[in-house]
Amino acid sequence: MDVMEAARQLEASGRDVVHMEVGQPGTPAPKTATDRLMAEIATGAPMGYTVALGLPELRRGVAQLYRNRHGIDLNPDRVIVTPGSSGAFILAFLALFDAGDQVAMATPSYPAYKNILRALDIAPVGVSSSIESGFQPDLAQLPENPGFQGLLVASPANPTGTMLSDDQLKGVAQWSAATDVSLISDEIYHGLSYESPAKSALEVTDDVIVVNSFAKYFSMTGWRIGWMVVPESMIRRVENLAQNFFICSSHASQVAAMGALEGTEELEGHRAVYARNRKQLMDALPGLGFTDIAPPDGAFYIYAKLPDLGEDSPEFCRRLLQDGGVATTTGLDFDDLHGHQTLRFSFARTEAEIAEGIRRLSEFMQKG
Amino acid sequence: MDVMEAARQLEASGRDVVHMEVGQPGTPAPKTATDRLMAEIATGAPMGYTVALGLPELRRGVAQLYRNRHGIDLNPDRVIVTPGSSGAFILAFLALFDAGDQVAMATPSYPAYKNILRALDIAPVGVSSSIESGFQPDLAQLPENPGFQGLLVASPANPTGTMLSDDQLKGVAQWSAATDVSLISDEIYHGLSYESPAKSALEVTDDVIVVNSFAKYFSMTGWRIGWMVVPESMIRRVENLAQNFFICSSHASQVAAMGALEGTEELEGHRAVYARNRKQLMDALPGLGFTDIAPPDGAFYIYAKLPDLGEDSPEFCRRLLQDGGVATTTGLDFDDLHGHQTLRFSFARTEAEIAEGIRRLSEFMQKG
Repeated sequence: MDVMEAARQLEASGRDVVHMEVGQPGTPAPKTATDRLMAEIATGAPMGYTVALGLPELRRGVAQLYRNRHGIDLNPDRVIVTPGSSGAFILAFLALFDAGDQVAMATPSYPAYKNILRALDIAPVGVSSSIESGFQPDLAQLPENPGFQGLLVASPANPTGTMLSDDQLKGVAQWSAATDVSLISDEIYHGLSYESPAKSALEVTDDVIVVNSFAKYFSMTGWRIGWMVVPESMIRRVENLAQNFFICSSHASQVAAMGALEGTEELEGHRAVYARNRKQLMDALPGLGFTDIAPPDGAFYIYAKLPDLGEDSPEFCRRLLQDGGVATTTGLDFDDLHGHQTLRFSFARTEAEIAEGIRRLSEFMQKG
Repeated sequence: MDVMEAARQLEASGRDVVHMEVGQPGTPAPKTATDRLMAEIATGAPMGYTVALGLPELRRGVAQLYRNRHGIDLNPDRVIVTPGSSGAFILAFLALFDAGDQVAMATPSYPAYKNILRALDIAPVGVSSSIESGFQPDLAQLPENPGFQGLLVASPANPTGTMLSDDQLKGVAQWSAATDVSLISDEIYHGLSYESPAKSALEVTDDVIVVNSFAKYFSMTGWRIGWMVVPESMIRRVENLAQNFFICSSHASQVAAMGALEGTEELEGHRAVYARNRKQLMDALPGLGFTDIAPPDGAFYIYAKLPDLGEDSPEFCRRLLQDGGVATTTGLDFDDLHGHQTLRFSFARTEAEIAEGIRRLSEFMQKG
């Protein structure tokens, strides 16, 4: 957030900034989404509260997505529409845990996980992970008698873009069943993968809360529409919480989301841009000294170790922005302990902007 | 919610139902709102995340609303845009209270207050109130040494429509300052009053969290856009919570809300309908046996004691729906203790529907 504010100030002063710090597409919602919404508005429908679980047609559409992407026959009753994935995490944490509980996750990780948990008096704790495990939980090191009540995995993950392998996903599910630890799978970057499609935790277990969203693949961050898939036994509890905490997700955004499900052609075009951006960066970064990189299977991020320049990443990112005109994110936002040696490049913008970012980064690194 | 589901089933079976149970207008967002949104979509703007506090123009617009309605010069920095008033309550409770704290409110009250508090391990407690105090906190009975950390007032209130008088509002503010109890003022029905305009708690103190919304007066329930006004010292804390819990409110809904602020002509038309509906009901209800009624200063509700028919309100409401074709809400939804003797009539629908509701209620009461 500090980088974004600094970038904004720099732009306000007339400087041009390449945005490799952003966590969202630069594209609007697909035309199928906004067309659907405008058609609904034109009917004069009041678009009041929806039921707490979300519009039935949208829940059926999401269930169909699991059939298309994963070959899963998902009961639409298990799909709960939420105000973004943020809303889904709040409901999942409230439904699964009590104050004083602990929830484990690998490092680095999306900072809001920890911040939401702490605000609910739930303690985030770490599990062993390394660049070798793609910064995903190291299966061999998961404890037999965990002191924590939940495990949160993300695939593709933010900030690394790494995915759980099939074996890792199965292993995590088996381990959580054996230890009675509640499993939450953050799959909000699904749809954005480049070598092979991401597996859903629902392919290996029904005893999981899966969190997903229309934000990233569907290019609708600002519309705040996500969803969760919960075990049948939890539907009623989550419905009660959703009713009280949110009443419902934005009706307008739910209508737009139904349209977005039809927007594949436009959305696959965005993915093709990200794929080319990823290749540009992966081709360029090692030659610029960024040699330790987690394999960015998906999302639109590359998480890299800083070359040894005798400075920490907050200072490096600050200089790169001020002197080089490129905004990036320090790893400290995702990892208190080791993040001072890392940074995150986002490649969610246009190909031209990423090419210009690489040119500037190259110039900046040569100046030293 | 059970009444709404029963009404839905009855309608699905082909029966006609008059909806006096609803908590929302039957009208869509004002045309100025949807026009503004459609114009924004037409520009192709990405409409990604906004800053957590909300679009600056919207925050300035809300501050201007306080100047227009209340003659208050409000710093727009204190206005925080939220996903409905629900989002504002979550942020207020998290910012002000810790697990184990207690928050007091008069009875009857909006059930989500208690449910959200309990889910956050905060205990809702009662304060003395009666039909004589308009079901608002009885000033003379507020304790000198309260065991609770917060007091929540609502004016106009749901389910009663009653407002705090100027003296009550001043008294509550003085008492909370003297006892160091955090004050939260729910003002989401502001704009919908019929005898005199509702006072904002901001007219008597800055040491309060005011919650409001575009849902009711602005006829935008389904858009999930509310706001809160916080003391300057709390802005940063609430911003952090909002960033982590919601990232932002729906960008599309924020754009629509900016348009809604220009929709006064259409919205005052809705209010005129509610005013005539209220008169219809207040003229008819006493003659039908509903003589104990809290003075419905605002909102679109009348909270009435059931005539002595030897049955409780859940049974009465069920029969009135099944045999009379009128949906209402049992007072038990708002008051565990005395709500079996009361019910809530909503008059948010058209004049014709309210007239038909009164005709059916009259027929139903005559049959006995």
